[in-house]
Amino acid sequence: MKKYVGCDLGGTNLRAAIVDVETGQVLEQMNIPTLAREGHAAVMKRMADLFLQLIQSAGMQKDEIGGIGIGVPGVLDLEKGDVLFLPNLSGTWPHVPLQATMEKLTGLPTTLLNDVRAITNGEWCFGAGRDFDTVAVFAIGTGIGGGLVINGQLQLGIGGTAGELGHMTIDFNGPRCGCGNYGCVEAYASGPAITAMGLKAVTQGLTTKIAVLCENDLNRITPELIARAAQDGDEIAKDIYERAGFYLGIAAANVCVTVGPRRIIIAGGVSQAGGLLLDPIRRTVRERVTVMPVEQVEVLPSQLGNNAGVIGVACWAAKQL
Amino acid sequence: MKKYVGCDLGGTNLRAAIVDVETGQVLEQMNIPTLAREGHAAVMKRMADLFLQLIQSAGMQKDEIGGIGIGVPGVLDLEKGDVLFLPNLSGTWPHVPLQATMEKLTGLPTTLLNDVRAITNGEWCFGAGRDFDTVAVFAIGTGIGGGLVINGQLQLGIGGTAGELGHMTIDFNGPRCGCGNYGCVEAYASGPAITAMGLKAVTQGLTTKIAVLCENDLNRITPELIARAAQDGDEIAKDIYERAGFYLGIAAANVCVTVGPRRIIIAGGVSQAGGLLLDPIRRTVRERVTVMPVEQVEVLPSQLGNNAGVIGVACWAAKQL
Repeated sequence: MKKYVGCDLGGTNLRAAIVDVETGQVLEQMNIPTLAREGHAAVMKRMADLFLQLIQSAGMQKDEIGGIGIGVPGVLDLEKGDVLFLPNLSGTWPHVPLQATMEKLTGLPTTLLNDVRAITNGEWCFGAGRDFDTVAVFAIGTGIGGGLVINGQLQLGIGGTAGELGHMTIDFNGPRCGCGNYGCVEAYASGPAITAMGLKAVTQGLTTKIAVLCENDLNRITPELIARAAQDGDEIAKDIYERAGFYLGIAAANVCVTVGPRRIIIAGGVSQAGGLLLDPIRRTVRERVTVMPVEQVEVLPSQLGNNAGVIGVACWAAKQL
Repeated sequence: MKKYVGCDLGGTNLRAAIVDVETGQVLEQMNIPTLAREGHAAVMKRMADLFLQLIQSAGMQKDEIGGIGIGVPGVLDLEKGDVLFLPNLSGTWPHVPLQATMEKLTGLPTTLLNDVRAITNGEWCFGAGRDFDTVAVFAIGTGIGGGLVINGQLQLGIGGTAGELGHMTIDFNGPRCGCGNYGCVEAYASGPAITAMGLKAVTQGLTTKIAVLCENDLNRITPELIARAAQDGDEIAKDIYERAGFYLGIAAANVCVTVGPRRIIIAGGVSQAGGLLLDPIRRTVRERVTVMPVEQVEVLPSQLGNNAGVIGVACWAAKQL
């Protein structure tokens, strides 16, 4: 069977891999900076060159490749293969025909998918969601992305926009979210929201290891630094992760009562905090869900880590093309 | 093709109908009081007698009937065909083998479904959700039930418990819900929640037609009476429906970002308030959803009304048996 190229178009890095879609194995992999500032035409050229170089470096011929899948951090028109809106990439990408351009530049059939739906597909095919027909993913980073597999099918909704679990309202009176709505879980528990809780603690003058670890340079506070403080036993830092996990748990509880997933997978950079974040999610889901058998829902970390996206979108390409 | 019996086991009434599952037409119909107080054995006997009488009254033979579907207002074990918990029926129904008992009493194959999932199936097959592959239903009465059809399949989740849209948290600090959770939309916008808003207005001494219409007898305040006051132009009553619609709109917005339905159908007794309730739902969904093409989602009233459940569960039985 042919192999597929999976690519994760990130704000900082372009990750690409040749994937054996029957086993989920990554056969060859390359990462280069996106250099989004140079504009979408230059980025697409870099991507095409990367793919061709990757195929060559694997010692493969183009006709051994079934196609290319690209995970895109934004809003897509899946039917046309256009990028409509990329909030996290500098430069403008309005109505960029990414799919058609990549097909022209590489000579290979190409398909697009939202980046977190790509992660979802990867975790479902070969990761923490394997063997379950209904699975939810929360990917926590700069924003909170999401994805759903329902009854053995990646849920696309209208034009591929379903699964935006980060934009579930958990308090209709809550703070403004980047999307324009109020009280989305993203406004409470994204990386920047966690950082902001750390900043607040330090600027309030609370006694916390966060202040020590950042050496009083507020710019150095990150979710990762706060996690280190928590792992050191700092109560303020632990409380920050407790709260973030509680908010995520409310959103996860909403997914439970709505679609009844068997697995809820926590992915993205912030999920590296592990139990600090996952334990309060699990506790909240168990406490808050009473109308379905929540003991049959497991909350798990991502299993494929950074490779989930490239594996997932390569498998998606294999299915679509 | 054989016809099917659909039954809605309500707290007050047993509704049963013979349904042509190819057209959704009700061929014969009977309603009798449930008399739940007499206990589950007596109720099951009444149901069986009702079904046999219904078949006779339609001038049909038992072998022209493919089976029976029963919509049950509670928690089921769909695999065993047992009733686990019926919060709104007096008497206890713990682990009652409803399916097996009905099969024994009637000699006809029987299948169970949650009552609002039955309505959902009915509206999807022959009502306001016809021709769309992803549809959500909110049924607003004593509680708020729900149901989802996703990609052309009634979403059952774990043991048939998916689609409990009334137990979506819209404010994690909100009031206690009957289910034990806090801030469920049911705690804000069910029939009793709407009634409570009317009671509060009157007991606060606000100048409102609700007080006039109930003739200062608080026991007479119902969602229907408040709707009449609103239709008479009463600002307090209109505001109560505005608020109920806003809360429902938040929950509907969560369904939009999660699964991306093309139709959101508002059913149940309270939905008879029409535009009073539906307009603020529509407005809230449009204002609150920014991450998917919400203009492609329509919020509509139920089309099959009181027949949605019996039609839906008869169609379900035809599919299952």
